[in-house]
Amino acid sequence: MLALHGVGVSDGISVGRATVLARELPEIVEYTLAPDQLDAEIARFLHAVKSARRQLVKIRDHIPPDAPAEAVSFIDTHVMILDDKMISEAPMEIIREQRRNAEWALKMQSDRLGEMFERMDDAYLRNKKTDVAQVVDRILRNLLAKADEDETERLGESEIVVAHDLTPADTVMLKHKRVHAFVTNMGGPISHTAILARSLGIPAIVSVHNATRYVRSGDQVIVDGKRGVLIVSPDEATITEYRRRQREILKRREALTRLRKARAVTLDGERVRLYANIELPGDVKAAVEAHAEGIGLYRTEFLYMNRPQPPDEEEQFRAYARVARALAGKPVTIRTLDLGADKQVDGHGRTALTANPALGLRAVRLCLHDPALFRPQLRAILRASAIGKVRIMIPMLSSQDELFRVLDLVEETKSSLKRAREKFNPRVPIGGMVEVPAAALSADLFAPYLDFFSIGTNDLIQYTLAIDRVDDAVNYLYDPLHPAVLRLIALTLEAGRKARIPVAMCGEMAGDPRYTRLLLGLGLKEFSMHPATLLQVKQNVRASDLKSLARFARRVLKTPDTHAVHALVDEANEGSD
Amino acid sequence: MLALHGVGVSDGISVGRATVLARELPEIVEYTLAPDQLDAEIARFLHAVKSARRQLVKIRDHIPPDAPAEAVSFIDTHVMILDDKMISEAPMEIIREQRRNAEWALKMQSDRLGEMFERMDDAYLRNKKTDVAQVVDRILRNLLAKADEDETERLGESEIVVAHDLTPADTVMLKHKRVHAFVTNMGGPISHTAILARSLGIPAIVSVHNATRYVRSGDQVIVDGKRGVLIVSPDEATITEYRRRQREILKRREALTRLRKARAVTLDGERVRLYANIELPGDVKAAVEAHAEGIGLYRTEFLYMNRPQPPDEEEQFRAYARVARALAGKPVTIRTLDLGADKQVDGHGRTALTANPALGLRAVRLCLHDPALFRPQLRAILRASAIGKVRIMIPMLSSQDELFRVLDLVEETKSSLKRAREKFNPRVPIGGMVEVPAAALSADLFAPYLDFFSIGTNDLIQYTLAIDRVDDAVNYLYDPLHPAVLRLIALTLEAGRKARIPVAMCGEMAGDPRYTRLLLGLGLKEFSMHPATLLQVKQNVRASDLKSLARFARRVLKTPDTHAVHALVDEANEGSD
Repeated sequence: MLALHGVGVSDGISVGRATVLARELPEIVEYTLAPDQLDAEIARFLHAVKSARRQLVKIRDHIPPDAPAEAVSFIDTHVMILDDKMISEAPMEIIREQRRNAEWALKMQSDRLGEMFERMDDAYLRNKKTDVAQVVDRILRNLLAKADEDETERLGESEIVVAHDLTPADTVMLKHKRVHAFVTNMGGPISHTAILARSLGIPAIVSVHNATRYVRSGDQVIVDGKRGVLIVSPDEATITEYRRRQREILKRREALTRLRKARAVTLDGERVRLYANIELPGDVKAAVEAHAEGIGLYRTEFLYMNRPQPPDEEEQFRAYARVARALAGKPVTIRTLDLGADKQVDGHGRTALTANPALGLRAVRLCLHDPALFRPQLRAILRASAIGKVRIMIPMLSSQDELFRVLDLVEETKSSLKRAREKFNPRVPIGGMVEVPAAALSADLFAPYLDFFSIGTNDLIQYTLAIDRVDDAVNYLYDPLHPAVLRLIALTLEAGRKARIPVAMCGEMAGDPRYTRLLLGLGLKEFSMHPATLLQVKQNVRASDLKSLARFARRVLKTPDTHAVHALVDEANEGSD
Repeated sequence: MLALHGVGVSDGISVGRATVLARELPEIVEYTLAPDQLDAEIARFLHAVKSARRQLVKIRDHIPPDAPAEAVSFIDTHVMILDDKMISEAPMEIIREQRRNAEWALKMQSDRLGEMFERMDDAYLRNKKTDVAQVVDRILRNLLAKADEDETERLGESEIVVAHDLTPADTVMLKHKRVHAFVTNMGGPISHTAILARSLGIPAIVSVHNATRYVRSGDQVIVDGKRGVLIVSPDEATITEYRRRQREILKRREALTRLRKARAVTLDGERVRLYANIELPGDVKAAVEAHAEGIGLYRTEFLYMNRPQPPDEEEQFRAYARVARALAGKPVTIRTLDLGADKQVDGHGRTALTANPALGLRAVRLCLHDPALFRPQLRAILRASAIGKVRIMIPMLSSQDELFRVLDLVEETKSSLKRAREKFNPRVPIGGMVEVPAAALSADLFAPYLDFFSIGTNDLIQYTLAIDRVDDAVNYLYDPLHPAVLRLIALTLEAGRKARIPVAMCGEMAGDPRYTRLLLGLGLKEFSMHPATLLQVKQNVRASDLKSLARFARRVLKTPDTHAVHALVDEANEGSD
């Protein structure tokens, strides 16, 4: 019996036989071509790209209807990447200019792109790096004629897959094969594998270093997706214990499903609102299915990605209107562009790399810096406000002046829409994200000018603790329960209460059932999260007594020791997960 | 009459004739060498390096005794850079491997170094980029046989120098020539030109774009170093007005000089402590001359720079002991290493560039990550504590756990020193820098374990507002008077008061006379700053009534509008500068 530890990214327990997908990429050889070989090499490259595209489209078209909405989006993303010039054309130039073989040219271009992504300031975007690598990998396999050796084809049913890493396409096909759990060497809590596993509702552990080395196909294994433990060749007693826990989990899951149509009301009758975070238009389906009361965070970055020019007003309007319509009168909170500038021009006309993009020109700063980028989005959102209950949410506010400039731009945009006789809601609510410490600390100074707040815990924690959570060297310091973070949340809630404007939370903390009780106790009444965790949070809400939780939260806020805070919160959750 | 605007970096007014130093670098031509030319080219390069070194040493040896202490250090830094393999050896490899000429090889290596410096996470280190560029420039001039055309040789006396940029060597030689003011196209408030001008006590404006284009040698000009204005060909009335202001400033300066030995006591008898920040051991002289009551911040990074290996315990001990001895029983607060890791190794053994080094593995995080780096420094500081009143200061604390680990390491180090029968002060005070928002927000939780706090405003403002202040695209948002910043300062002071431990401030805000009144009003009693501003701050302290300033500070804290806060602070300073 051997226990390996990783990061549990999808709850649940699975007991079964392992199948190890040992997909090692063959070494890439570099060789020089004669000038008369170049056309043939380019044709070979194009053929590989075409085959890769055909494979992806085929997988997408065969996604079973019960697969999660993300599956289609993730594979669409891969097709979009494949269609991008950076992938499908740039290597041809390298072949021609450097007279090198297609594999080497593709590898070279992919390294360049990799570096570019590394420098991006956003965990979400850096995640896309994996997508690019996976698309490159697929083209390479086609170039090397390895594409047909798809191990997933050889899989039996009811198995636990252990792999170095999984692509979205793998994940979809594995689901098709009724695989019961995933374990990967690589990946993090926001990797596609993690997101899909949560949506599929099957246990998964990522970042189990060397899992593929210690597990052999055929080994009996137990996957504990909650604790992130993979047990290889367990003894009988262990299997019995885990089977018992597995039955309990199933029972709880069934209870959760029955909660779909139940209202999120506490034991003492307080109404709590549970919203969904969405990103791709396809995510709406999951939000509606989970009976979310609206969209608390609609990320708009996907519209701007994998393309050389930003989308125009019409394209944005269509995307926002589609979501507004699908939500049928429920609130749709559209966050304005939250991207960073990946290149900046210094005072002397030279392009300068930014040393710390997370502390640079991004989100509302970038939008105010470049109104030509911001205006079409404001126009599109305002026009969508004629169709549904649309709200505007401004990311990364840090000073009053920025807020005033945004409000001026919104007023200007309204006037211009009026002149053009376009319809919009003249009283569209405007809210601010509280994700910079300055915003939380001076929330009382922002509140009079806003219709709502939404606390973005991911960035708020990052800046408050001065750590980049995707930086492996320091993410051990990332802690939602750090007293400083809790105090900022409490300050923001208090500012909202005094100004009588609602305060929501749309960071990951809001969707983590471990924090539901504490947040309720602090006074949070609006939670927005990934649809997959909504029912669990709802269950916690319905089991809560607000008055006793308020006492609990006061006690937590007064606890002078970080470990004691963690212990208190764990204790409050005990027996209830 | 024409007015040009820049950044005033050294107060004072100067009226006189301009001398424009138009030093343009000739274009570097690239050419390929035959294999038998390589040895001669390398000899040519080595000769240029040797000449550059001789020139620098000569300038340093002729620095007049009344020159500021920084002058020697800055030129020493240039000699150290010149001696570094990266500058004096790497280009030889390039010459040999790429068979290119020395100028091109040097340029190529310098570009590489430039990129490396761009990625550094510290404004201070990025500043070093200029040093490297200036050293490279000097070698290039020697290669191109332009080194003798030193325009400073041709200067008359009593002039105002307008240049594209100035090297420390220029600045020293200009002082020698009794130049009365500097104006440069380039540079920022922490450039060498700025620092030296402040030490020399002559007016200076940097970052006046195109100053060398609009001013011709012989033009009459007025330099207003406070407002950052350069007036070209002023009319008579303007000259008369500026001469009047010049006389007033001189009168105030004389009054300041008389304050040297005066005590920093407020009108209502409250004692305030004014300390100096130092960096290079040579800075001690300026600190002692300004009658500082001790060193509030001794930066130790200089010991670690421009060398492949960190300094050993002995070398560090000698440096710390020298300062401790020079301060003769006054406190010397040594900050432990505050560098970032410029390279990191990811979980898979690959070297990864950090996307946001300011939010990464740096300062105490790096030291705890690498105790082999930290222990020799702790040993050296502890040993120096037997010689003077040494205190240890920990930068970038963000969590209690970090603090506990540091305290454990200090205890361990003490035991090991005891076993080795080394002398040290067993009760050496240990303080924490408050520069991460989390530390300010939970200062009450850190206080019980520390002997003092020191607020590092530069980083605190940076993280609280989520802006990198050396990023030109966002530094307009940098604001020491942001209500969020003032609230964090107030929180830290309150935590110190309750725990009865002193709270100092060692960021730039502490040395800026515009903020003295507000900080006194908030309850700050210990200021640490560059020695050059100490007397001005002392003057403000001596003109202050703490009780009325406390009322003023309360009013500022309650003001709901950022502009109004600025107006209040300006008003409080009016008539007193």
